[in-house]
Amino acid sequence: MIAEQNHALDNGGDGRKPVTAAAIAEQIDGTLTGDATVIVTGVAPLDRAGANELSILSSPRYAEWFEKTTAGVVLISRELANAPGSPRARIVVDKPVDAMVALLKLFHRSDPRVPGIHPTAFVSASAVIGDNVCVEPFAVIGDRVLLSHGSWIGAHVVVGEETTVGENARLHPHCVIYPRVEIGARAVVHAGAQIGREGFGWVTSTGQRVPHVGRCVLGDDVEIGANTCVDRGSIDDTIIGAGTKIDNLCQIAHNVRIGRGCFLASQVGIAGSARLEDGVQMGGQAGLQGHVTVGAGATLGGQAGVLGDVPAREFWSGYPARPHREQLRSHAAMARLVKLVRPLEKLLSRGGDAE
Amino acid sequence: MIAEQNHALDNGGDGRKPVTAAAIAEQIDGTLTGDATVIVTGVAPLDRAGANELSILSSPRYAEWFEKTTAGVVLISRELANAPGSPRARIVVDKPVDAMVALLKLFHRSDPRVPGIHPTAFVSASAVIGDNVCVEPFAVIGDRVLLSHGSWIGAHVVVGEETTVGENARLHPHCVIYPRVEIGARAVVHAGAQIGREGFGWVTSTGQRVPHVGRCVLGDDVEIGANTCVDRGSIDDTIIGAGTKIDNLCQIAHNVRIGRGCFLASQVGIAGSARLEDGVQMGGQAGLQGHVTVGAGATLGGQAGVLGDVPAREFWSGYPARPHREQLRSHAAMARLVKLVRPLEKLLSRGGDAE
Amino acid sequence: MIAEQNHALDNGGDGRKPVTAAAIAEQIDGTLTGDATVIVTGVAPLDRAGANELSILSSPRYAEWFEKTTAGVVLISRELANAPGSPRARIVVDKPVDAMVALLKLFHRSDPRVPGIHPTAFVSASAVIGDNVCVEPFAVIGDRVLLSHGSWIGAHVVVGEETTVGENARLHPHCVIYPRVEIGARAVVHAGAQIGREGFGWVTSTGQRVPHVGRCVLGDDVEIGANTCVDRGSIDDTIIGAGTKIDNLCQIAHNVRIGRGCFLASQVGIAGSARLEDGVQMGGQAGLQGHVTVGAGATLGGQAGVLGDVPAREFWSGYPARPHREQLRSHAAMARLVKLVRPLEKLLSRGGDAE
Repeated sequence: MIAEQNHALDNGGDGRKPVTAAAIAEQIDGTLTGDATVIVTGVAPLDRAGANELSILSSPRYAEWFEKTTAGVVLISRELANAPGSPRARIVVDKPVDAMVALLKLFHRSDPRVPGIHPTAFVSASAVIGDNVCVEPFAVIGDRVLLSHGSWIGAHVVVGEETTVGENARLHPHCVIYPRVEIGARAVVHAGAQIGREGFGWVTSTGQRVPHVGRCVLGDDVEIGANTCVDRGSIDDTIIGAGTKIDNLCQIAHNVRIGRGCFLASQVGIAGSARLEDGVQMGGQAGLQGHVTVGAGATLGGQAGVLGDVPAREFWSGYPARPHREQLRSHAAMARLVKLVRPLEKLLSRGGDAE
Repeated sequence: MIAEQNHALDNGGDGRKPVTAAAIAEQIDGTLTGDATVIVTGVAPLDRAGANELSILSSPRYAEWFEKTTAGVVLISRELANAPGSPRARIVVDKPVDAMVALLKLFHRSDPRVPGIHPTAFVSASAVIGDNVCVEPFAVIGDRVLLSHGSWIGAHVVVGEETTVGENARLHPHCVIYPRVEIGARAVVHAGAQIGREGFGWVTSTGQRVPHVGRCVLGDDVEIGANTCVDRGSIDDTIIGAGTKIDNLCQIAHNVRIGRGCFLASQVGIAGSARLEDGVQMGGQAGLQGHVTVGAGATLGGQAGVLGDVPAREFWSGYPARPHREQLRSHAAMARLVKLVRPLEKLLSRGGDAE
Repeated sequence: MIAEQNHALDNGGDGRKPVTAAAIAEQIDGTLTGDATVIVTGVAPLDRAGANELSILSSPRYAEWFEKTTAGVVLISRELANAPGSPRARIVVDKPVDAMVALLKLFHRSDPRVPGIHPTAFVSASAVIGDNVCVEPFAVIGDRVLLSHGSWIGAHVVVGEETTVGENARLHPHCVIYPRVEIGARAVVHAGAQIGREGFGWVTSTGQRVPHVGRCVLGDDVEIGANTCVDRGSIDDTIIGAGTKIDNLCQIAHNVRIGRGCFLASQVGIAGSARLEDGVQMGGQAGLQGHVTVGAGATLGGQAGVLGDVPAREFWSGYPARPHREQLRSHAAMARLVKLVRPLEKLLSRGGDAE
C-alpha cells in the first residue's frame, strides 16, 4: 500500500512538485490535525522551516524550537503530540523519523548527470566504454580500463590502467583509482577516496618496499566514503564484500578482507590482513590490529582498540577491546575501588602482617 | 602604539624589504644587546638561521642550539637572557613567542593570486561570477553557482551546482564542494577537503541510503583543514558557526551543529546530530558520539571519547570522557591500588569470612 | 648467490616471462616436492590461485584454504610441510613470507611511465624541468618550481611556486604540494597527500592566523601515504628525515621534526613542535601531544596517547602512554582488583574503624 502511494506521489518527487499535508498524512498513515491543504515543497529543521516546508519533532530536546517554529507541517510523535507550538498542521505518527525517511525521496534532488565523455576528459584509446557512461571534465581514464554501462566518472577522477568499473557504479569527483582495481556494479566511491594504492609493507632492514601483487576488489553495492583509503594486497587480496558501506576517512590496509553488509563509521582503521566476517559494524575511530578476525554480526564500539579475535555477534568496546558488559562492569568496579584507596592503605599499614 | 609601529614597518613586510635589529626591538618593546644595525630579511629556527635571519630562544630545551647558532638576531626570554651563545644581537622580551608572532607578518610571503578565470577552467554559463574573482587552472564551476566578489578558487577545485561562495572566501586546490553548499565570507577551505557529501545514513535493513535534503553551511571566517570532511544534513542542517577553525583530517557528520569560535584540532571526529555550543575546543583525535551536546566554552582533551553531554566551560578527557580532574584523581588512585593487589588478596584469603 | 639468481631471473620479472617451480625453489633455497616443471606466471592467495600461480601457506589459519587450493606451486613452512592439500608442487622453506617477498618482484608490474610533459598539463614558463621528467595530464606546475631529473608528476598534481622536487621523486596523482616545499631525491608522495599547508596556529583571542614562515622538508627516500597531511612550520621548520615512511591519513603538524628511518602507521597524529628521533616506530592511530620528544628507536603501540617524553628504545602503549610492560602489569592487577571490590567493601564496612 505504501508502495502504491509512493507511486502516486512519484510525480511530485525530486523537489519539483508540491504535495499537500493530507497526501503526506495518508502516505505515512498518520493522524493530521490543523490545515490539511498546506502545500509542502521541501523539508527543513524546525528552526528554519517556512510555511511550505515539512519538519519533524521526535525528541523533547527540540521542543523549544517547536514552540517558535514557522513550519507548515510537522511530523510528531504520540508523546509530543500536544507540545506547545503553532505549525499550520501536525501529523502524529508512531515513528516520525522512519516516516520522514520514507518521505525524503519526494524532496531529494538528484545530481545532474550528462551522459557522454566531456571534451576536456582524457580517455585512453584502449579504454572500453559502455553505453550511457558519463565522464565529467578533466577525468583521466588509463589504458585498457573498462567503464561498464551506466557508470559515472566524476570530474578529475583518475582511473589507473586495467581497472574495471561495474555497471552503474559512480566515482565522485577527485577520487583516485590505482591500476588494476575491480569495482563492482552500483558501487559508489566518494570524493578524495584513494583505492588500490600499494600498502604499507617494508623490508624494515633495508627500507625497501614489499612489491604488491595482490588485487583490490570492491564488491557490488559497496560505498566508500570521502578521503577513505583502501590499499591493494601484497600477496593476498584486499576485498570489500558486497553491500558493505564505509564512511569518510577510514583506512583499510593491504590484504584486509571485509565480508558482506558491514557498516564502518568514519575514521575507522583496519591494519593489514585483518578479517571482518559478514555484517560487522564498527563505531567511529575504532581500530583493528593486523591479522585479527571479527566474527559475523559483531559490533565494535567507537574508539575500540581490538588486539585479538572477536567472536561472532558480540559487542566489544574500549582499549584493549573486550565484551562491552565486562567493560561496563569493570568501569563500575573501578569507580568503587577508587573510593576505597585511602581506607585500604590505612588498613594494610596497620595490619602490616598482611604482607 | 604597536599598531602605529606596525604601520611604519608595513612597507618592509612580506619578506621583501629588510628591517634592522633596532627597529625590531622598538616594535616589540624589547631590550637590545649587541649589534643594533644587523639587517634582518627572514625568520629561521636556531639550527639553520643565518647572519640576516631572526630566531627565537624561549625554552631551555633549545639552549644547545642557541650555543651554536649563527643567527643574526635572537628574541630571548628574561630567564634565558644570558644563556651562552653568540648571535650578533639579542632582544630580551617578556614573551618571545608572542613577540615573534607579531613580527611574522613582516616576513611572510603571500601566495600569488591572479584575478580572472584561467582559460583551462570549466565554468558553467549559468554561474554568477563577482568582481575580482580568481579561478585557477582546471577548476570546475557548476550550474548556477555564485562566486562572490574577491573569492579565490584554487586549481582543480570542483564546485557543485547552486553552491554559493562568500566574498573573499578561498578554496585551496583540490577541494570538492558538493552541490548546494553555502560558504561564508572570508571562509578558507584547504586542499582535499570534501564539503557537503551526503552523510552516512542508511536504512540498515535494506542497505538503502537515507536521502539527504539538509543543508551544509560554513559561516563567515570559518577555516576547514586539508582533507577534512563535512557532510551535509539529512533532515537537519550541518552548520559550522562563524569564526570556527577546524584542522586537517577531521570528520563532521550529518546534522552536526557547531557554534561560533570553536577550535577543533586534527583528526577530530564528530558523529551525527551532535552539537557544539560557542567557543568549544577539542584536542587532536578526540571523538564525539552522535546526539551529544558540548556546552559553551568547554574543552575536550586529545583522544577524548565523549559519550554524553559535557557541561559548559568544563575540561573533560579520557575514555569514556569525564571531568579532567576526576580523571587524574582516578588515575592516581588506580596507581596506588595496583600496588596493593597482592596484600589485599592475602588479607582476604586469610579472613575468608569477609566474603 | 641469491643476488646472482636474482640476476638470472630478472629477465623473467615484471610478470611478463614465466618461471618454473624448479627455478623458484633454487632461488629461495627451498625443498621442492611434486612437479618441478610447473610454470608460474603470477602470485595469488590460496583461495583463488590457479594452475600457473604461486601461493603461500605460512600459518595453520589458512590450512582450510590449502586443502582446497588449485594453486600450481605453494611455498610452505616446515611445520606445515605435510598439511593435506594438493597443489602441483610444494616448496618447503624456513621462512615462507621472506621467501615470497624476495620473489614478488618477479611478478610485480610497474606502472606505465611516459617521459615528457603531457599537453594538457599547465607548466609555468619559469619552472625548471630536468631530463627524463614525466608530467601527467592536468598537472599544474607553479612559478620557479624545480623538477629534478627523472622526477614523475602524476595526473592533477599541483606543485606550488618555488617548490623543489628531487631526482627520481614521484608524486602520485592528486597530491598537492603547497609553495616553497623541498622534496628529496627518490621521495614518494601518494594520492591526495597535502604537503606544506600553513599549520593550525591561531591567536585565539583574535581568531587571526599565525603567519607560517617556516619550511616543509621531505628528505631523500621519504614516503608519504595517501591523504596524509604535513603542515609547514610557523617559526621552526617541519622536517621529515631521510628514509622515513609514513602511511595513509596521518597528520604531521607544524614544526614537527622527524628523524631518519622512522615508520608511522596509518592515522597517526603528531601535534605541533613534537620531535621524533631516528628509527621511531608508531602504531596506527597513535597520537603525540605537542612539544614532546620520542627518543631514538622507541616504539609506540597502536592508539597510544603520548603526553610526555618517551625514552630511547622503549616500547610504550595505552592512554596516557607508559612503558608497555607496566601497562600490562597494571591491566592484570586491575582485573584482579575488580574481583575483590565486593569483599573489600564488606571488610571495610565491618571494620568501620579503618576509616
